[in-house]
Amino acid sequence: MSEKMVTPRILSGFLELLPEDQILFNQMMDIIREGYESYGFLPLDTPTIELSSVLLAKAGDETEKQIYRFQKGDNDLSLRFDLTVPLARYAAMHEMDLAFPFKRYQIGKVFRGERPQHGRFREFYQCDIDVIGLENLSLYYDAEMPAIIYQIFTKLNFGPFVIHLNNRKLLNGFFEALELRSKAGEILRLVDKLEKIGEENLKKELLSIGISEEKLAIILSFLTMEGSNREKLDFAKTFFADNPVYVEGLEELQQVCDNLSLLGVPEEAYTIDFSIARGLDYYTGTVYETRLVDHPELGSVCSGGRYDNLTAYYTKQNMPGIGISIGLSRLFAQLKEANIIQAKKKTLLDVLIIPMGEEQIRDALKAATFFRARGLKADVYYENKGMKPKMKYAARLGVPFAALIGEEEAREGKIALKNMDTSEQNLMTPEEALPLLKA
Amino acid sequence: MSEKMVTPRILSGFLELLPEDQILFNQMMDIIREGYESYGFLPLDTPTIELSSVLLAKAGDETEKQIYRFQKGDNDLSLRFDLTVPLARYAAMHEMDLAFPFKRYQIGKVFRGERPQHGRFREFYQCDIDVIGLENLSLYYDAEMPAIIYQIFTKLNFGPFVIHLNNRKLLNGFFEALELRSKAGEILRLVDKLEKIGEENLKKELLSIGISEEKLAIILSFLTMEGSNREKLDFAKTFFADNPVYVEGLEELQQVCDNLSLLGVPEEAYTIDFSIARGLDYYTGTVYETRLVDHPELGSVCSGGRYDNLTAYYTKQNMPGIGISIGLSRLFAQLKEANIIQAKKKTLLDVLIIPMGEEQIRDALKAATFFRARGLKADVYYENKGMKPKMKYAARLGVPFAALIGEEEAREGKIALKNMDTSEQNLMTPEEALPLLKA
Repeated sequence: MSEKMVTPRILSGFLELLPEDQILFNQMMDIIREGYESYGFLPLDTPTIELSSVLLAKAGDETEKQIYRFQKGDNDLSLRFDLTVPLARYAAMHEMDLAFPFKRYQIGKVFRGERPQHGRFREFYQCDIDVIGLENLSLYYDAEMPAIIYQIFTKLNFGPFVIHLNNRKLLNGFFEALELRSKAGEILRLVDKLEKIGEENLKKELLSIGISEEKLAIILSFLTMEGSNREKLDFAKTFFADNPVYVEGLEELQQVCDNLSLLGVPEEAYTIDFSIARGLDYYTGTVYETRLVDHPELGSVCSGGRYDNLTAYYTKQNMPGIGISIGLSRLFAQLKEANIIQAKKKTLLDVLIIPMGEEQIRDALKAATFFRARGLKADVYYENKGMKPKMKYAARLGVPFAALIGEEEAREGKIALKNMDTSEQNLMTPEEALPLLKA
Repeated sequence: MSEKMVTPRILSGFLELLPEDQILFNQMMDIIREGYESYGFLPLDTPTIELSSVLLAKAGDETEKQIYRFQKGDNDLSLRFDLTVPLARYAAMHEMDLAFPFKRYQIGKVFRGERPQHGRFREFYQCDIDVIGLENLSLYYDAEMPAIIYQIFTKLNFGPFVIHLNNRKLLNGFFEALELRSKAGEILRLVDKLEKIGEENLKKELLSIGISEEKLAIILSFLTMEGSNREKLDFAKTFFADNPVYVEGLEELQQVCDNLSLLGVPEEAYTIDFSIARGLDYYTGTVYETRLVDHPELGSVCSGGRYDNLTAYYTKQNMPGIGISIGLSRLFAQLKEANIIQAKKKTLLDVLIIPMGEEQIRDALKAATFFRARGLKADVYYENKGMKPKMKYAARLGVPFAALIGEEEAREGKIALKNMDTSEQNLMTPEEALPLLKA
């Protein structure tokens, strides 16, 4: 063993929290997990390390650069960079073992060796759901995704949010009809900058990439359409009724909106937004983004969409799917920084039991056992110190209640229950304390 | 994008489960987490990737060989191989931010690039708790650890188990008094083989490493002592009363046993076992192993102990600690193989709602929303297929109830609730179905 001393530190771009923040983080994760489970999604937990040849079957150059990839023994290994490729690999491997449509959730860390930027992490949690079909997959799932987002973000309680909906067929048909299919990506990227650079600059940029004045007017009126969802759908019907892809996309979008109300999602929680596309190569139908109304600077806090053939690189079986993802580590860091969330609990304990002296530890242990057996979280302060450091520890821990046991309390089988917020203190039996501690 | 097709597979030594097993695995993990939290342990989640210089400050050659270690950019990185070293690093980094005694739990994956053997994993879950003190740490925590093991393994319900207790001071004093300190490791390893090789062979092996006949008799009578805990403690008092380390260890062990009953642990759940030592260099006081009575072949399913100076490599502050660990992936695989556990639930759903035709999907969605709002897990089967494949899907999923909605049910605002086990089917309102679904 070496005797050198090392400065304890972690790498930049890695999230590690103090207990009070970790409690808050876990509460968010629990809400997301419960939301996913309430819709029947099954848990999945794939390995962190996969064979590079399998994991990178599809990946492009840009992805490969970010991968943590290394050799161990004879194996070329990589850390997973998302939860979608492992799902594709899993669904292809276990096609015969799974019931389709297969609904799975996975909450786990993924790894990207990016140069760390503000708010970007190299190791971060993703919370994903996907529904995978064989050959086809009902359009009703396209409404289920925003219904789940609505349920979860309502519970997370970060303030008002709006789910932005679009359809890639509609978008493809639109650019096809304008004979601008090859420029679609560039145009969408420019339109995305509208709020930042203003309409005049946007027009200039669009003209500079060779869009005619006439098409430019159509593009802008379409992509920045305003009004209610009903008005947008009606207005969209005035475009390209002769393009079958456009029409199909529009009909799907209308259907999704109709189904959303049946799933209990109020009109104000979602908006059709013809300007969103999400990853141009990947999605093929409905796409989603979720934005916090009071914090547009956070960008999308939950995104996803429908794709055609998840498992193309692993099996001939066609598996279309639809899914959404919450990047929890990044979201947590953003929400903290914007003061939208604050750690409120420094402990999970309901009560800390403090024996006045060594002689009362037996009674403290008994009280703790009594409380735990009734579903409460209870701890005993064992260290042999004066009352002042004992109470200081209770305050530092942030427990809602301290239960003091001195000679008198021990003799009477009671505790002095102190409300740490109000400093109110009352003598009572552990039994009598139960309703207070559970409240 | 390449068009090559890759066989989907994972590396050997990595655990990946089908949904029904994952549900069971997660239930076990939840019981462990709840058990830890009920004693006031705080959640911690350290990065998977650490700087090699920090993570391997203490590691010896044997550990280093197993590490997944690699270069990314300028950084020499390693995947964590346990949760104890990251805890030491964290406690040293955040000494000023934490309240001591600091109680933390961490449930997470660790990585060891071993040659995979039967029942060994290269990536596996550990579920750890530790209590870290500043300068000193009350002996009451030594009783708290087995009390927590008792609570958790009772809930896990794998059948009868016994927690084996020993004390390293007692063991060190014992070998010191025999002037066999340098051979202690070897002797303990041989005694551990007693059941396998028999007493005669053990004696031969001990003689062959130079233990005298006289000392051999003492060693055997001591290390294989039988009887009640009280009898063992009394018998142990007849040895080496003049060795202060031995006496101190014996007193600690006695104290721990006394406190265990106060914490509600019955006598039959623990046994003093002078033959266990756990990692010779590491532990310095109480040590634990937990064995399933009917499955001794599984070895220890939860182990740990007290150590002196957790953070020696990171800070001058002395931080003694005590902790236990459950190697959940390995335990799960062992229990499955021994048929001690079986997956019982293939789904988390309480009910699958099946519309007979497209026209009833609206009613199905409404019923699902109604059930979810009341805390139930509900899903709708959307695919447009015949009744037979629909019911087959319900059976395959393993849902306890299917709620069928045809024309008649829809007209009356009712569902035909089918118990999938008994095939009993009754017409009722969703409201009337609630108590059945919640039962």
